[in-house]
Amino acid sequence: KQQKNSKGNGDFCIKNIKQADFGRREIEIAEQEFRTTIPLQAKKTPLLSSSPQVLMETLSALGAQCRWAACNIYSTQNEVAAALAEGGETRVFAWKGESEDDFWWCIDRCVNVEGWQPNMILDDGGDLTHWIYKKYPNMFKKIKGIVEESVTGVHRLYQLSKAGKLCVPAMNVNDSVTKQKFDNLYCCRESILDGLKRTTDVMFGGKQVVVCGYGEVGKGCCAALKAMGSIVYVTEIDPICALQACMDGFRLVKLNEVIRQVDIVITCTGNKNVVVRENLDRMKNGCIVCNMGHSNTEIDVASLRTPELTWERVRSQVDHVIWPDGKRIVLLAEGRLLNLSCSTVPTFVLSITATTQALALIELYNAPEGRYKQDVYLLPKKMDEYVASLHLPTFDAHLTELTDEQAKYLGLNKNGPFKPNYYR
Amino acid sequence: KQQKNSKGNGDFCIKNIKQADFGRREIEIAEQEFRTTIPLQAKKTPLLSSSPQVLMETLSALGAQCRWAACNIYSTQNEVAAALAEGGETRVFAWKGESEDDFWWCIDRCVNVEGWQPNMILDDGGDLTHWIYKKYPNMFKKIKGIVEESVTGVHRLYQLSKAGKLCVPAMNVNDSVTKQKFDNLYCCRESILDGLKRTTDVMFGGKQVVVCGYGEVGKGCCAALKAMGSIVYVTEIDPICALQACMDGFRLVKLNEVIRQVDIVITCTGNKNVVVRENLDRMKNGCIVCNMGHSNTEIDVASLRTPELTWERVRSQVDHVIWPDGKRIVLLAEGRLLNLSCSTVPTFVLSITATTQALALIELYNAPEGRYKQDVYLLPKKMDEYVASLHLPTFDAHLTELTDEQAKYLGLNKNGPFKPNYYR
Amino acid sequence: KQQKNSKGNGDFCIKNIKQADFGRREIEIAEQEFRTTIPLQAKKTPLLSSSPQVLMETLSALGAQCRWAACNIYSTQNEVAAALAEGGETRVFAWKGESEDDFWWCIDRCVNVEGWQPNMILDDGGDLTHWIYKKYPNMFKKIKGIVEESVTGVHRLYQLSKAGKLCVPAMNVNDSVTKQKFDNLYCCRESILDGLKRTTDVMFGGKQVVVCGYGEVGKGCCAALKAMGSIVYVTEIDPICALQACMDGFRLVKLNEVIRQVDIVITCTGNKNVVVRENLDRMKNGCIVCNMGHSNTEIDVASLRTPELTWERVRSQVDHVIWPDGKRIVLLAEGRLLNLSCSTVPTFVLSITATTQALALIELYNAPEGRYKQDVYLLPKKMDEYVASLHLPTFDAHLTELTDEQAKYLGLNKNGPFKPNYYR
Amino acid sequence: KQQKNSKGNGDFCIKNIKQADFGRREIEIAEQEFRTTIPLQAKKTPLLSSSPQVLMETLSALGAQCRWAACNIYSTQNEVAAALAEGGETRVFAWKGESEDDFWWCIDRCVNVEGWQPNMILDDGGDLTHWIYKKYPNMFKKIKGIVEESVTGVHRLYQLSKAGKLCVPAMNVNDSVTKQKFDNLYCCRESILDGLKRTTDVMFGGKQVVVCGYGEVGKGCCAALKAMGSIVYVTEIDPICALQACMDGFRLVKLNEVIRQVDIVITCTGNKNVVVRENLDRMKNGCIVCNMGHSNTEIDVASLRTPELTWERVRSQVDHVIWPDGKRIVLLAEGRLLNLSCSTVPTFVLSITATTQALALIELYNAPEGRYKQDVYLLPKKMDEYVASLHLPTFDAHLTELTDEQAKYLGLNKNGPFKPNYYR
Repeated sequence: KQQKNSKGNGDFCIKNIKQADFGRREIEIAEQEFRTTIPLQAKKTPLLSSSPQVLMETLSALGAQCRWAACNIYSTQNEVAAALAEGGETRVFAWKGESEDDFWWCIDRCVNVEGWQPNMILDDGGDLTHWIYKKYPNMFKKIKGIVEESVTGVHRLYQLSKAGKLCVPAMNVNDSVTKQKFDNLYCCRESILDGLKRTTDVMFGGKQVVVCGYGEVGKGCCAALKAMGSIVYVTEIDPICALQACMDGFRLVKLNEVIRQVDIVITCTGNKNVVVRENLDRMKNGCIVCNMGHSNTEIDVASLRTPELTWERVRSQVDHVIWPDGKRIVLLAEGRLLNLSCSTVPTFVLSITATTQALALIELYNAPEGRYKQDVYLLPKKMDEYVASLHLPTFDAHLTELTDEQAKYLGLNKNGPFKPNYYR
Repeated sequence: KQQKNSKGNGDFCIKNIKQADFGRREIEIAEQEFRTTIPLQAKKTPLLSSSPQVLMETLSALGAQCRWAACNIYSTQNEVAAALAEGGETRVFAWKGESEDDFWWCIDRCVNVEGWQPNMILDDGGDLTHWIYKKYPNMFKKIKGIVEESVTGVHRLYQLSKAGKLCVPAMNVNDSVTKQKFDNLYCCRESILDGLKRTTDVMFGGKQVVVCGYGEVGKGCCAALKAMGSIVYVTEIDPICALQACMDGFRLVKLNEVIRQVDIVITCTGNKNVVVRENLDRMKNGCIVCNMGHSNTEIDVASLRTPELTWERVRSQVDHVIWPDGKRIVLLAEGRLLNLSCSTVPTFVLSITATTQALALIELYNAPEGRYKQDVYLLPKKMDEYVASLHLPTFDAHLTELTDEQAKYLGLNKNGPFKPNYYR
Repeated sequence: KQQKNSKGNGDFCIKNIKQADFGRREIEIAEQEFRTTIPLQAKKTPLLSSSPQVLMETLSALGAQCRWAACNIYSTQNEVAAALAEGGETRVFAWKGESEDDFWWCIDRCVNVEGWQPNMILDDGGDLTHWIYKKYPNMFKKIKGIVEESVTGVHRLYQLSKAGKLCVPAMNVNDSVTKQKFDNLYCCRESILDGLKRTTDVMFGGKQVVVCGYGEVGKGCCAALKAMGSIVYVTEIDPICALQACMDGFRLVKLNEVIRQVDIVITCTGNKNVVVRENLDRMKNGCIVCNMGHSNTEIDVASLRTPELTWERVRSQVDHVIWPDGKRIVLLAEGRLLNLSCSTVPTFVLSITATTQALALIELYNAPEGRYKQDVYLLPKKMDEYVASLHLPTFDAHLTELTDEQAKYLGLNKNGPFKPNYYR
Repeated sequence: KQQKNSKGNGDFCIKNIKQADFGRREIEIAEQEFRTTIPLQAKKTPLLSSSPQVLMETLSALGAQCRWAACNIYSTQNEVAAALAEGGETRVFAWKGESEDDFWWCIDRCVNVEGWQPNMILDDGGDLTHWIYKKYPNMFKKIKGIVEESVTGVHRLYQLSKAGKLCVPAMNVNDSVTKQKFDNLYCCRESILDGLKRTTDVMFGGKQVVVCGYGEVGKGCCAALKAMGSIVYVTEIDPICALQACMDGFRLVKLNEVIRQVDIVITCTGNKNVVVRENLDRMKNGCIVCNMGHSNTEIDVASLRTPELTWERVRSQVDHVIWPDGKRIVLLAEGRLLNLSCSTVPTFVLSITATTQALALIELYNAPEGRYKQDVYLLPKKMDEYVASLHLPTFDAHLTELTDEQAKYLGLNKNGPFKPNYYR
């Protein structure tokens, strides 16, 4: 259905342009917390993106001509999309609850436009990149680089690179320290509580919880739940993370050792089939199951689509799956990511990510010919530190400066970088 | 507007009877966690109540004929009220967002019904009791007792008692240990996070927060926010609570020492005018202000209703109050209780409270003539322990029993009570 | 062996007067933290005491003529006793490692002195009071009151009172809120770690620990160990404390459910035979067993004095008890109180206790005839708050004062007391 | 002074051979916790070492002929050294409280022995390596490699390597994940509390503390003190660590902002002159100052050796430095490392480090010619994971194994390594 914004422009596809005012207010609320200024000169650059909405306006203000599709069929806030469409600077093709077909249609509408050719790709998950590789490979001739922020997307890029098929430089911003810590540890520490509360109103105190995976996401979830008085068990495959879980006070178990007794099961592994039908069969009545990890592969939801089980949608994003004996499992977001589907990402975290992405875009765009080859790069440590330093004033935090004598003693430049690359 | 439930009964007044199915589902979800069985014989007893909805059905099942009005103009969940109305056993007069007049009208509809006379009052805040005192004092002749669960209501009862005007026995269930800890410490530890997230999506990490009051509610709020990485300051008037705050790692300050620097202000005092216009004038842009304490007196909201300030409703329960220089204060729930308005009370906490109330009702109803005089009583310690013990199986918690030798050594009965009355 | 201090005075009995200088330094270190001033006029009062050393000098400075014996055969610091003896104002009869006979001999030397008659008793455990009852009952004619600070001593006083045998007023300072919280919760939170480290150097991270008893001491121990990364189980007999343990995130078990798997067993019950031979038989090799609770009854140490078990003293206060199969249990302080035997009580806690005791002494001494009968009294709430307020400046803590309007609203005096008596 | 052990061997130099029995008991206590078995075949290899004592016996048991000198003039436990000397397999040249000259003399006695030539160096700090470079460079011809575990030693090796002067392969075990986390984060989380308690008996609750540096050591110190109820401020030079401190709930300040108000100052920077005379002049009376970081450079202790300040040794490792106005600063360990001087390293941490060192030694010793060049290497990730997995059984921790399908999905070998090299 064709809609137009108040300026008569119709080059977008969203749920409802009338929600623009409400969305604009949401953006303003976000900006209350989103205080980082990216101190850069404006430049004109056509940009394709499937990245969070907040970044779009900043990039437009810097001079980018952005076209934007969603990276996930549920992650779009319709009101915010409407506000962007109404603003008119970013072309938006996204709504909450797209079908699989819608999803690819939106991406295609982003890319395939007459008289416009992107020179930068800002991707989140790699679907946009994948689409261009598949449908419009010639576009890469004019593209200066790809900035990718997700585990999956980065994984795909490394595979392309290994296969010798990567035809432009790519920046892996997923693994910058600042972005990692915020997206995973700090954000999930809060969103696990938020997501569970909004969907189930469960009380955390005294609950027994098993968290599968003790990476950054798992660490955040465990710390939050422990602080709220839950008893937390951890499963791990990596002995180093396993030992960390022990030292942080969590019993390290195999899933089947505790599956009968736990009240909540949370997956944070990045793996597939971590919770399978056999586990689900043994859970107790009322057990809550959700995924904080990756994609929708961690819980084998397909195994629950069998005739003897009844599904009952009790709230948005909450299904009761009912066994023949009456046992109910509470499945959240149909096994998709809880933090994307059932909680919001704090604007401060978006600001960290967006700043990282923007700096990476600028770095790739401005880099002299030849600095970056057709390979995947980590964000330079110094830029990582720069992103962090831009966010310190929010906390009224005062950094100490090295004296000349100290810098010399440590063998460091007074302006950083301050740590080796592997430092987290 | 007259509505009827599916059985043709119209003795209720709620928002929309069509929401009954949805509400029934909500109740079922609650029952997933609300597992306590009150192991009592059924009895028939007409009951007036302004207490949480979940209790009503239990009491009905026990044989009570209940009529129910809301205790707060915002606290009713319309769907749940509809489900109760549809069920037909409890007469419901309540909806979310009643006016002051509606509120008293509902109470009157509860009380003033031909051919029905209550013999027990279950009150929350004392308004129901107050109304009967004022309008239908003769009703007390047949009333066997009052069970009251709020600070305010208890306060009123003690005043009646002191003035020699209390004409039936009353049970103060507010000050039972179990109920206190859950309603205040444990519940607020979770609801402060939930309430702030649902309204503002604020990230807690690194935020500076001042919590006014370090009673049970304050302790819960401070512990939760500290665990989420906030920097928390506390104000107190009582040196004992103040010293506890120090020992728990919070800087004890006067409000004006930190008011310019904090990101969030939370009141938990039970006092009035704890945050006044002068404080609000000095807060920084974007500061969030909310009340977890009592009534709506803690923040002097009236002082913000002046011509030079602009109010902007940005979301449900969220107002921006805008100063002439553009500074915005984010006021939640117009200074009313955040945990009642913007978060949900976990069903487990409702179960604790409801069990305490039900036991108190039964105790008063069954007590032999003369055991209770026209006075205010605390729930007997042993019943308090009984409420706790009924909730232990939820956690698969295994209590240790005293041996005869140990009981003798300690001078205790093996079945309790185990602690002196002042033990918390 | 007769010793004299540098002034030629020999009315004391300690280990070694030559340690006086070292002990004086220890006292000075303590005074660095022990900053409370008790702002009172000096008065002359003969005093008997078995209380901590630090208080003695303060009381002497206030004009008391003190004679002091130890309350525990291990708790005396010889150097500090020497310093007091050298100072000459307090007569000291105490050393570390007294025999049972020594213990009573010291008490008798305190009491039984020609030309001196006490008018106040400051007791800790009730042995001193017991001795006078037994040997010198006539002394009570001139005694104005007893101040008692221990659970045991208070228990004995209530029994005397119940039996109608208490012949002077007694003040139970053990149950004042401030004293309780510091002596138990806050102090044990630190001393459990300190005591275990000094004796065993054990690493807490990842250790499985069972804590028997979740009163204030148990709460302190559990919180500290959880924070250090231990996995903590709790046993309880009281359902209210049990539920608190659940909500604080501890699995509530019976001892035999976890006894095979734990690394550390800690008793904090005030009960007897909490850990018995059967439990000890099932512990795993290397398990550490200690008592934070009360007296030396909690662990049935006597049951370990059997021929098939070998005891090996590996360090001061540390025994390995060795089973025939080579299994070793690490028993600390022979089952006596770990915090008294193997760690130090922070001077700040001593200051709280000492201030409470001093105020109670002064209250009893100064009270007009007839205010206190031959009964056991709790410290008045207002004095309890006063003790707390005297210690706030140490933390640079700033108390908020009620406005007149607020005091009226709350129905409180602006100077307190601020809480009901049962508030903890 | 020449001593001989019971077998008549005199090739050692320690404090007192008579302490051997006591030291043997200490070692046995340690072995209670030190349960890792290094499952390797014995081999004969002459080894020079300045590493912890516990490792020596293991290496001897594996067939190494070890000679050992201390890495720090205070870190030797005389009794343990005596036990090793008595055992006779390790030649020991070390005692607590060596002078600077003693220190180098001991190292020389280790190295310079007729008819013996080392083929591996196990160093901690680089002094041993330095001495051989300086005095016996020819020895390197037969040396197969250096294993170095300290920051300083590793720094020196990288400098040698950069300068092209490194003449054998070297393994940097300091930066293995497992070793880092345990030596720094987990160990310091406990030893900061232990070190402060043993020296000062300070109560942590309510104390204001500034921690300089928020690396792994700082993170451990801050977490422990926060958990004990201290109010903690952090200083940092690195914006990434600074942001982490903010998100963990610590105010980030410059030292001079809080120096007047804090009760305790802790340095954990690895830097020099972090606390200088100007800071010390402004501290309040009774402030405790200590170093958890590195060497003895962090606090400018030399600046306190001036005539107007009086030093008073109040206990072992505790000095009062007294200003003309009577102000006292409590300086611990004369500014040397608190955790080495005033607390013990848990045997579990020693086990982690020792296992890492042993595996690195074996790797270098067994490596085929040419695998390692004259360069500095990190411990291979897989060995790092192996060290971790060897320590899991202590915690009864059960690792989950990848299914074939999952391993394929993740692109991992089922036996690891599981994470990229930069993962911490």
